[in-house]
Amino acid sequence: MRENNPRRHPGDRRDRRFDGKREPRAAVPEVQEEDETRLEGRNALTEALRAGRTIDKVFIADGDIDKGLQRLAAMAKEAGAVIVPVDRRKLDLMSTTHAHQGVIAQAAAHEYATIDDILEEAAARGQAPLIVICDELSDPHNLGAIMRSAECAGAHGVIIPKRRSVGLTATVAKASAGAVEYMKVARVININTCIAELKEKGVWIYGAAGEGSVPMYRSDLTGPAAIVIGNEGDGLSPLVRKNCDMLVHIPMSGRISSLNASAAASILLYEAVRQRLNTEV
Amino acid sequence: MRENNPRRHPGDRRDRRFDGKREPRAAVPEVQEEDETRLEGRNALTEALRAGRTIDKVFIADGDIDKGLQRLAAMAKEAGAVIVPVDRRKLDLMSTTHAHQGVIAQAAAHEYATIDDILEEAAARGQAPLIVICDELSDPHNLGAIMRSAECAGAHGVIIPKRRSVGLTATVAKASAGAVEYMKVARVININTCIAELKEKGVWIYGAAGEGSVPMYRSDLTGPAAIVIGNEGDGLSPLVRKNCDMLVHIPMSGRISSLNASAAASILLYEAVRQRLNTEV
Repeated sequence: MRENNPRRHPGDRRDRRFDGKREPRAAVPEVQEEDETRLEGRNALTEALRAGRTIDKVFIADGDIDKGLQRLAAMAKEAGAVIVPVDRRKLDLMSTTHAHQGVIAQAAAHEYATIDDILEEAAARGQAPLIVICDELSDPHNLGAIMRSAECAGAHGVIIPKRRSVGLTATVAKASAGAVEYMKVARVININTCIAELKEKGVWIYGAAGEGSVPMYRSDLTGPAAIVIGNEGDGLSPLVRKNCDMLVHIPMSGRISSLNASAAASILLYEAVRQRLNTEV
Repeated sequence: MRENNPRRHPGDRRDRRFDGKREPRAAVPEVQEEDETRLEGRNALTEALRAGRTIDKVFIADGDIDKGLQRLAAMAKEAGAVIVPVDRRKLDLMSTTHAHQGVIAQAAAHEYATIDDILEEAAARGQAPLIVICDELSDPHNLGAIMRSAECAGAHGVIIPKRRSVGLTATVAKASAGAVEYMKVARVININTCIAELKEKGVWIYGAAGEGSVPMYRSDLTGPAAIVIGNEGDGLSPLVRKNCDMLVHIPMSGRISSLNASAAASILLYEAVRQRLNTEV
């Protein structure tokens, strides 16, 4: 954990939203909960980076940008942020301060862990690792709900990709109902590389797939296991499917085709809990 | 199912929101998805009642109201709506048309079923009834997600109370991901009376309680079963707890105290699915 600058606390709203200046116009609405982790303007991002805050994404004006902005983007990238060039009009739409100066950043509501942190947590508890890998979830409520269920089920960590995924935003933190404080969340550059790394370390990869050939009740989730949950719309990507050790499915009896991502994760996590309780007896 | 008036389709937005008149002012924002079932003004409600639409709730100006409004409230009550007197200033805040005329109503996004419809559905499928009773859920996403999981698990119906509960709003319908079209939802005046009725008809009542003495794996959910899910904040009410045949709990290993209501419902529903599959084998 890096130390914060004691003089400028990153939780100080003025620093983050208005660069220490007064509100730029009177009609700016009350700050929304989601915006607690939204940084607008160059000074806001510079200060956050200096304070060691984790920045998930930096949306930066597309096209010709000046040296200062280039330098800032390089600093953010070095600190682990994903840089997303967007049209200046899109920045204007995203902006709530109307003073974004060509840059809007999304800070994490909590620090990220690493895959090793997660495996060490399992080892420290003397348990076989139980991990959820969320492959490109876009709904913050789903990620938060999965963190909550993972914590209740005694899982050791959640893994998300850096790109094309919601990060640890304020909405995710809220939906997690406090689990954000305990559940380790690792953010990886590539899910398939992460799967390879986990396999090497002895973890079996179980992909949740509608058409998976093995009903979850016949899978063995008692050993070191990572459950992969696909994107809300498309499910698992073809390469991730291929890289799973086993595809499992939750039996479906209704006339609609799929469960909500967080419901599916909760059901699979608790199937693991049930199997692990059985082996204890 | 009552027939709609063929000349005035209740889905016609003009009828429902603006009483057939033009928008009252230019600055009214784009209609939000949630508002598809929101009826503002006397004509909108009158037409919806005439067309046989199901009205969940009628928010009506508190205090001195004229004869016309009294008559309208009586009509709505007779048609099964809950009448909620509210301060006129609150109505102003709720209003998106700024022409509520002292009344704003919430129509259901789908028709309700009865308890008997649910039991008949189970009988028609030759299965022991599997029902979820939602005791005063306030989050539409939770109710929608529960309907979705219930449909996937092959449950026969969901029961909600008329008061202090979200109804079948447009947000619930959307969160249900299509399950609203299939899952039977009954709305009852009193959950405890409903529990008594179900017991009389041979259904066992299982309350989901954190401190329930029986782990769900040791309960028997293979017979006719209704699972009661409590309110997001407070869980089961004391009387509902008392009326359950059995209190069950989902094992909790984490440092936070409870699962999300829809996650808990999904896990319990799938425990019933697992037990029922086992008895089939």
